[in-house]
Amino acid sequence: MGVDWKTKFAERVGGLHGSMTRKLMSVLDDPEMISLGGGLPAWDLFPIDAIRQVVDDLLRTDGPATLQYGTSEGYRPLREALAERCRSRGFKVSTEDILIDTGSMQGIDLLAKLFLDKGDAVVVEDPTFLTALQAFRFFQARFLTVGVDDEGMQVERLPELLERNPVKFIYVMPTFQNPTGATLSLARRHELLEVAARFGVPVVEDDSYGELRYEGEALPPLKALDEEGVVIYLSSFSKTLSPGLRLGFVAAPGPLQEKLLFAKQSADLHTTVLSQRIAHEFLRRDLLDPHIRGIVAAYRRRRDAMLKALEERFPRGVRWSRPEGGFFLWVTLPAGMDADRLLEQAIREKVMFVPGSCYFANGGGAGSLRLSFSAYGEEKLALGIERLARAIERGGGSA
Amino acid sequence: MGVDWKTKFAERVGGLHGSMTRKLMSVLDDPEMISLGGGLPAWDLFPIDAIRQVVDDLLRTDGPATLQYGTSEGYRPLREALAERCRSRGFKVSTEDILIDTGSMQGIDLLAKLFLDKGDAVVVEDPTFLTALQAFRFFQARFLTVGVDDEGMQVERLPELLERNPVKFIYVMPTFQNPTGATLSLARRHELLEVAARFGVPVVEDDSYGELRYEGEALPPLKALDEEGVVIYLSSFSKTLSPGLRLGFVAAPGPLQEKLLFAKQSADLHTTVLSQRIAHEFLRRDLLDPHIRGIVAAYRRRRDAMLKALEERFPRGVRWSRPEGGFFLWVTLPAGMDADRLLEQAIREKVMFVPGSCYFANGGGAGSLRLSFSAYGEEKLALGIERLARAIERGGGSA
Repeated sequence: MGVDWKTKFAERVGGLHGSMTRKLMSVLDDPEMISLGGGLPAWDLFPIDAIRQVVDDLLRTDGPATLQYGTSEGYRPLREALAERCRSRGFKVSTEDILIDTGSMQGIDLLAKLFLDKGDAVVVEDPTFLTALQAFRFFQARFLTVGVDDEGMQVERLPELLERNPVKFIYVMPTFQNPTGATLSLARRHELLEVAARFGVPVVEDDSYGELRYEGEALPPLKALDEEGVVIYLSSFSKTLSPGLRLGFVAAPGPLQEKLLFAKQSADLHTTVLSQRIAHEFLRRDLLDPHIRGIVAAYRRRRDAMLKALEERFPRGVRWSRPEGGFFLWVTLPAGMDADRLLEQAIREKVMFVPGSCYFANGGGAGSLRLSFSAYGEEKLALGIERLARAIERGGGSA
Repeated sequence: MGVDWKTKFAERVGGLHGSMTRKLMSVLDDPEMISLGGGLPAWDLFPIDAIRQVVDDLLRTDGPATLQYGTSEGYRPLREALAERCRSRGFKVSTEDILIDTGSMQGIDLLAKLFLDKGDAVVVEDPTFLTALQAFRFFQARFLTVGVDDEGMQVERLPELLERNPVKFIYVMPTFQNPTGATLSLARRHELLEVAARFGVPVVEDDSYGELRYEGEALPPLKALDEEGVVIYLSSFSKTLSPGLRLGFVAAPGPLQEKLLFAKQSADLHTTVLSQRIAHEFLRRDLLDPHIRGIVAAYRRRRDAMLKALEERFPRGVRWSRPEGGFFLWVTLPAGMDADRLLEQAIREKVMFVPGSCYFANGGGAGSLRLSFSAYGEEKLALGIERLARAIERGGGSA
């Protein structure tokens, strides 16, 4: 009697296991803990008063439409405003190209659903965004990996991979990559697009962090360089406005749009209207760009504070990246040190990070880790690095 | 050069085609049109002022947490409040059993993802909720159908079906079913659970309309009668509070919870925190039940107005259901009449409905249609029925 659940699950469920992200969440209840792990936006930088004012205005003047069902494509004035904003960055996109979703994660999931049969190959950076790997694994993808260096994905390795394997798409985060903070150079951007078009392989560009640049000159997103219509562009309001609102968008080539809309409709009918309306008002009232300028200045100070603390406190032999934007930097431990073991010592010192091995699709990365500088102010970041340096010095992670 | 998209799509995408719902949306721009098609909640019954006050309070007192990332399970105090509310209806559920989602539609999609391999069988009512069929089709399900009469799903047909077919789950809307408005009798509820437990088949109970009863005595949800732990319960705030907020929940048996959480995390990380916090405040401040009592009274008047207009205006030979709750009633046309053809005439008369054939998984239902009485006040409903009666009299739909 009752259900033998194991016999009911789809084959795709077999390979799932608990994610590191969730395990890390479980020790966050300790108020003494400094988490350099999760990539949370700063608690103190949300534009709370502006959102409060906007919601008040929306509910007073257009309450019923703000609370009623919306269309699967998304609120049209928001799509228009986003298309306009994209065009100002050089994309050739129209309102029809824009589908509102609940963030890059949903974009990734919808694309996985549309493209991936069991065993299909996806090219990912090594390391890459952990939750994207989980979504692709859910659709039983297999991963072909391309390394990342200071100039981003090592694009020169692509032709050989694509020559030998049919590939459904290339997933890439070209600007301030999660987890390394690396940015794809302009030369490699052109090369990636040339190779993708030559082999007829779509490129999924995840630009979740692209608007958060703290130094150097802005590079055009792949979508702005895309002459052949191979790029599917994912963006998010999670890092610029608020992750709790769950809001982002896809800018997709024409042949994909109807299918993407079916996928969205079957997934959740449409995105929260209130969130869409808030973002639309932020664009319409020109509140978003000034807000982004403010948080960029604050995140720059945080990045600089973390870099300074690393230089002052970290032992010789440890190396780290110097990202020009985003939330993360990437640490490489001396040979023989293991980040999983270091994490145990670090938790005793009341500091956390994410071991780098999580981000490698096919294994590896035991000697690396990801640090986030987004959530805390400068003093707390320095204290976190102090604790982590102590954990390293006390031999956590050594074989 | 460029991408040949057709060659990239997953096999599951092949069978997708445009949905009637979306086609119907396209003529809604006509301000003269009375749509008895879509199941929109009343535009004039949203608790706008209360939501405005709640959001203002939340952003003033707990702004950062309201805008920050949340957990994939959902906001814990909301889960606690919902578990408590379920227990008051007789469910044996704990806070851990509750996963917050973006509405029944997402619950359906997550379950499809967890259970369905290509070709797997799902038992559905005939007719049933259109968008659920689309979600199951996305995972290449095949459908075994069981008819619906005035007492809901004809449960006595289940044993033979389950004897002959391995089935992943039974999807059922026992109370005020979409599209027929039918409610599963108590005897059949017990019989359904007995059969499901005997054959070891999960039951997915979609209770989106269950709180909207206009007459008769409340029946316990299947989940409240479920001794063997076979029922996965889906609920939604879309009909009681606001669909635009995108909020609902799943109450799932223990062995399912970890997998469901993975699926949710991969789909969209978590549900909009602001929406969750609004619903939590509605429960905490005891605003929800009084609001539901108010809309139930209004929807009762609307149902009665539609039934009265049907009795006064519809030609002999047309039959319709008399639902005790929900948003819909089901019309059966005289033999030889076709609802798709009637719709063309109806649109000329400036009234719309959804042809019944949409809701049949494996075809059929050409002589039936769904009417919704939820969106408009009594006068407009009467006018809509007047126009529809005229369309029938003018021979729209006759062979």
